[in-house]
Amino acid sequence: MVQPVLYSLFREGRVQQLLDLLKGLHPADLVETLHEFSPEEQERFFLLIPNEQSAIILQEMDLPEAAAVLARLPLGTAAEILKEMYSDEAVDILAELPKENAAKLLMLMKEAGEELKELLAYEEDTSGGLMATEFVAIPENMTVGGTLAYLRKVAPSAENAYYIYVVTRDKKLVGVISLRELVVTPLETRVGQIMHRKVVKVPEDLDQEEVARLFEKYGLLVLPVVDKEDRLVGIITVDDAITVAKEEATEDIHKAGSVTPLRTSYKSAGVLTLYSKRVGWLLALILVNLISSGVIAAFEETLSVALTLAFFIPLLIDTGGNTGCQSATLVVRALVTGDIKLTSWFRTFGKELLVGMLLGLTLGTAGWFLGAFRGGALIGVIIGLTMLAIVVTANLVGMILPFILTRLRLDPAVASSPLITTIMDAIGLLTYFTIARMFLAL
Amino acid sequence: MVQPVLYSLFREGRVQQLLDLLKGLHPADLVETLHEFSPEEQERFFLLIPNEQSAIILQEMDLPEAAAVLARLPLGTAAEILKEMYSDEAVDILAELPKENAAKLLMLMKEAGEELKELLAYEEDTSGGLMATEFVAIPENMTVGGTLAYLRKVAPSAENAYYIYVVTRDKKLVGVISLRELVVTPLETRVGQIMHRKVVKVPEDLDQEEVARLFEKYGLLVLPVVDKEDRLVGIITVDDAITVAKEEATEDIHKAGSVTPLRTSYKSAGVLTLYSKRVGWLLALILVNLISSGVIAAFEETLSVALTLAFFIPLLIDTGGNTGCQSATLVVRALVTGDIKLTSWFRTFGKELLVGMLLGLTLGTAGWFLGAFRGGALIGVIIGLTMLAIVVTANLVGMILPFILTRLRLDPAVASSPLITTIMDAIGLLTYFTIARMFLAL
Repeated sequence: MVQPVLYSLFREGRVQQLLDLLKGLHPADLVETLHEFSPEEQERFFLLIPNEQSAIILQEMDLPEAAAVLARLPLGTAAEILKEMYSDEAVDILAELPKENAAKLLMLMKEAGEELKELLAYEEDTSGGLMATEFVAIPENMTVGGTLAYLRKVAPSAENAYYIYVVTRDKKLVGVISLRELVVTPLETRVGQIMHRKVVKVPEDLDQEEVARLFEKYGLLVLPVVDKEDRLVGIITVDDAITVAKEEATEDIHKAGSVTPLRTSYKSAGVLTLYSKRVGWLLALILVNLISSGVIAAFEETLSVALTLAFFIPLLIDTGGNTGCQSATLVVRALVTGDIKLTSWFRTFGKELLVGMLLGLTLGTAGWFLGAFRGGALIGVIIGLTMLAIVVTANLVGMILPFILTRLRLDPAVASSPLITTIMDAIGLLTYFTIARMFLAL
Repeated sequence: MVQPVLYSLFREGRVQQLLDLLKGLHPADLVETLHEFSPEEQERFFLLIPNEQSAIILQEMDLPEAAAVLARLPLGTAAEILKEMYSDEAVDILAELPKENAAKLLMLMKEAGEELKELLAYEEDTSGGLMATEFVAIPENMTVGGTLAYLRKVAPSAENAYYIYVVTRDKKLVGVISLRELVVTPLETRVGQIMHRKVVKVPEDLDQEEVARLFEKYGLLVLPVVDKEDRLVGIITVDDAITVAKEEATEDIHKAGSVTPLRTSYKSAGVLTLYSKRVGWLLALILVNLISSGVIAAFEETLSVALTLAFFIPLLIDTGGNTGCQSATLVVRALVTGDIKLTSWFRTFGKELLVGMLLGLTLGTAGWFLGAFRGGALIGVIIGLTMLAIVVTANLVGMILPFILTRLRLDPAVASSPLITTIMDAIGLLTYFTIARMFLAL
């Protein structure tokens, strides 16, 4: 609806009307419209509007996109825009830019640049890499009235106004009070009297997945970050926690599909990036697969006597893979979300043994019929029994592998469907031909 | 650390000290300790502490757990505890209880029960099912000072104090103002002058996945829900949005593993539930697999002449499945998160065609060597070419299937690894034997 109007105002250079229109538009919606602009038009657009507004809009964009826009703007303008951003967002964008470019911008930003340089030193996927330095901190002996007057002066933005942190003279975090509590407390009360002394806080180097889990567990809006001396150094806001949770879910899903996680979105990943994130796994799985080929070759004689056995190879090994893939999916996700813990491995084993036996009996019966139908009574028995054995085994393999990976301090999500399929092929074929040889008395 | 102390205070019935200890403990941490209690101890514990505190603790528990605790308490106590809860939490727990039980509780709760009954009527996975009715709404002509005085009186809780909604006399939502803005505005200003008139809001029946997406897109803390007449009926808070996002990610991961999503956690799902969520898919996939068996049977003669061909069956069909599984994983996730849209299908096709060709050349070369090594030069050529063809095809199948599913208004996550593996088996075998027959001149 808005887009054609906005575009024509922009093309006709009616700046005042354009700015009025932008006022009523959420930056997240504007970003969708900007996607339709050519790079040159985007550049002109950002030169046209005030730097504060550019900062807000760029903060809504995907990182690679925002960096691309910033790289096209004159260095001076880019530096001014970065100054207007929240420090966590500015740092993320700077990290996307070529090193030389980022260094120049930091220099142009002077003092603000020095601060950002410190933030840039943190690992991207830790609490330090997520935090912003725009927090409100006050001393213990300030009154509620004084605090409200102070807030009025610094006019904090929505990101950081809801919790006010109480710190000692040497910046140690000693308490927190919410804006809601301030508002309903008599003005002459000292914050030290009403603040909460137990603050959920994290060290600078905590993994971001753990950060997201804390937000969920405690239902937080903001999480303060402290250094080794317990000094308040930054805050993480809930919107960043949501973004992290989404990123981590995407990463787990990619691992479950045997794709090395992309650090960027699918849309902005090039052909060569996608190739490189996939080819390693495929080649590794081919090597594991040589075992399956070996198994069949070892039973060449059995196969030459009863060629009918070959018909059922895909059926049996696929069912094994599919079953193992199901139990692995359930167990991996439960381990990742903390639904089950390493210590409950015995109970999980019992559960999956029972589920596997029920599934095995059902699929074994189905296999028996299919086998008898196509290959006669004896083949029916062979297929049925093999199916039962494969399903029970696959179910346990799919369950055990994630536990082993977690135990080895590896991500259980690596227990991917392709890996389990490939492992189950070898086990399945060995089971199949062993059972067949017994019954066919070869 | 805390648990043994808490437990011994509880066993010794030292209520006052127990209550003091609880004050300094986050309810989310307490819940972990309560897991170690027997059901009888849990019951006694909740009878010991004040109902307000019980409400806070139960809200932190998993739904089935909280419902189980509540079901063990005397009806009167249970009703009092429910009254102390946020309406959205109370409704969720009531929905877990047996119908008769819930009806009795609602009756005991009188007025509050009537309100909850209305909330119970909403579908669980919609905005109406997520919302709470505890919001702060004021008329347009109220002053900032008056609003602050009003807030002081109703003393809203952390969940709903950060946004104050402005409504007309007939409850229509006309604006919103944040507590932060109130605090920094002169007291005599009327809220109508400073409120934001463009409010991001949702209808009562919006799907919860869409709700979570709006929270992420706009970086919201609270989202108001309106009825068809634009009257404010409830609010959804960001902590619920985080829970929904996690649930939906789990659902997508389960679908990707061909498991019908569990409505409960893995831990609380019984053996029969797990069986029933899995057996349908496995049986369906067996039927699809009959095509593969048919393909091999149709080429029985080819196979009997060159039995070596059988050795490579698992290698070839697995590589097809693995490749297709990778591209499906990437495309499904990108479609689900909105990273790519249905309209960009042509661009995605081109990208995956190129990636598939690069992968096909790499894996084809590897296959050529493996084939030549085990079966001689001719077999090498057959395996290499088949590998190339299968990888390119599988890559496109894995990419196209999610697009088709989305187009048919089905969830793309159903393009699961097992489904793709099974489809690629049939296609792969057909390709393999056709190429082999050509080269072996059969």
